[in-house]
Amino acid sequence: MLTSLQNPLVKQARKLHQSKGRRSEGLLLLEGTHLLEEACANSYQLETVFCTPHWQEKHPQLWEILSKQASRLELVSPKVLEAIATTVNPDGAIATAPRTTKDTLPITSLGLALETIQDPGNLGAIIRTAAATGVEGLWASNDSADLDHPKVLRASAGGWFKLAMGVSTDLQGQLRGYQQQGLQVVATVPDAGLNYWQIDLRKPSIILLGNEGAGLSPEAIELADQRISIPLSGGIESLNVAICAALILYEAQRQRQNN
Amino acid sequence: MLTSLQNPLVKQARKLHQSKGRRSEGLLLLEGTHLLEEACANSYQLETVFCTPHWQEKHPQLWEILSKQASRLELVSPKVLEAIATTVNPDGAIATAPRTTKDTLPITSLGLALETIQDPGNLGAIIRTAAATGVEGLWASNDSADLDHPKVLRASAGGWFKLAMGVSTDLQGQLRGYQQQGLQVVATVPDAGLNYWQIDLRKPSIILLGNEGAGLSPEAIELADQRISIPLSGGIESLNVAICAALILYEAQRQRQNN
Repeated sequence: MLTSLQNPLVKQARKLHQSKGRRSEGLLLLEGTHLLEEACANSYQLETVFCTPHWQEKHPQLWEILSKQASRLELVSPKVLEAIATTVNPDGAIATAPRTTKDTLPITSLGLALETIQDPGNLGAIIRTAAATGVEGLWASNDSADLDHPKVLRASAGGWFKLAMGVSTDLQGQLRGYQQQGLQVVATVPDAGLNYWQIDLRKPSIILLGNEGAGLSPEAIELADQRISIPLSGGIESLNVAICAALILYEAQRQRQNN
Repeated sequence: MLTSLQNPLVKQARKLHQSKGRRSEGLLLLEGTHLLEEACANSYQLETVFCTPHWQEKHPQLWEILSKQASRLELVSPKVLEAIATTVNPDGAIATAPRTTKDTLPITSLGLALETIQDPGNLGAIIRTAAATGVEGLWASNDSADLDHPKVLRASAGGWFKLAMGVSTDLQGQLRGYQQQGLQVVATVPDAGLNYWQIDLRKPSIILLGNEGAGLSPEAIELADQRISIPLSGGIESLNVAICAALILYEAQRQRQNN
């Protein structure tokens, strides 16, 4: 059983708390029983699984599956597990896994493009909803929160494993590429004069959402084929971006199922 | 300037971090410039405003308004302000204000009823969306997170001041009352066989949502006039409850504006 914080595997896992460490190690961190179950259910390759003896006793079946799916299993003391975790009360199991980034995302019906989304909780919630609405691919601009930030993974509630995702250094170029393939780019802005249910979302579409505070860049808005808003009453100025994403993705689903 | 954590006003404010303290003092805590602006904009009565000299210098106009709206203004040291705050990096101003709870909520068109919602962040996000969709009143069962929990207030982003809300010790009794007045109660459940856009939400409606993990109680589901679901694909098991609330409230708005 690993009990030292100086152990190289433990030190490596702790590096993954930071973006820089995830890049240099080429790994990400999966925290908690639920995410490990989801990783197994989706045959996601695992590197090292760390768990406490207590957790191992309580989860014999998952342990069995993990022992096949992971390159390495390590029993660790509760103190070591806490040090590896980014959460305050980890539930006893954490794994490292290879990062996977896609350079191309084939989207022919429904996609999502995110510009400078900064809150990992929002990003995770968007991923969860995108997976639930059959989105084919999600692009995040490279100044967004990391797609494999531990909080993104947790907030996605397993949706992370089910959605094709990529980080783009040229989101607008990417969007123009989809436009050339015949998809409409739909930008969400504060005052479009058109509500999101007033456009035809049965057409192949990329939904474009911007930063929590500043919204989309003028260039991204300019590039879009359609500009829509979510109507707000009662003097409310804005909604959470994950809620905006859900409203538009489900409206697309509603329109498509009704026809 | 108050510099001691032993000052009675400071001790009283710190009690408001806990539900018990808010009850015994009959006060709640408003943290941060944005919530204070919203309180003033909505003429919400304030008891004591605490702020640092630095904050006062930076916000002369808001200070002026607060000096009319609050019973008392106190300059405090940054250390005292941090002690009063529930957040890690408070922005320099916090107020106490009387709690307001409503015993009756006149709802004739659209209302929301929440059973055992436990996460204050979810509750705040629901309040924000409810205010943005013209909900007339929101009932929370008395085993939900406190409506005046500091995190609820923050997450509501000002929506809190714009929405009539009440805590119910008998949510089902309350719902039956609205049914007798001709409103339909619409329960959100995992497998209703009916999507939320397939029912008529132009009718006067109370939308009923349940606990994050366990969902609605069998009794609440039984009582409802309509049971609806949010369709999920890709093996996703559920969505965040604040997202569910937003989807249904906006679908009601869509149907009502289209007719």
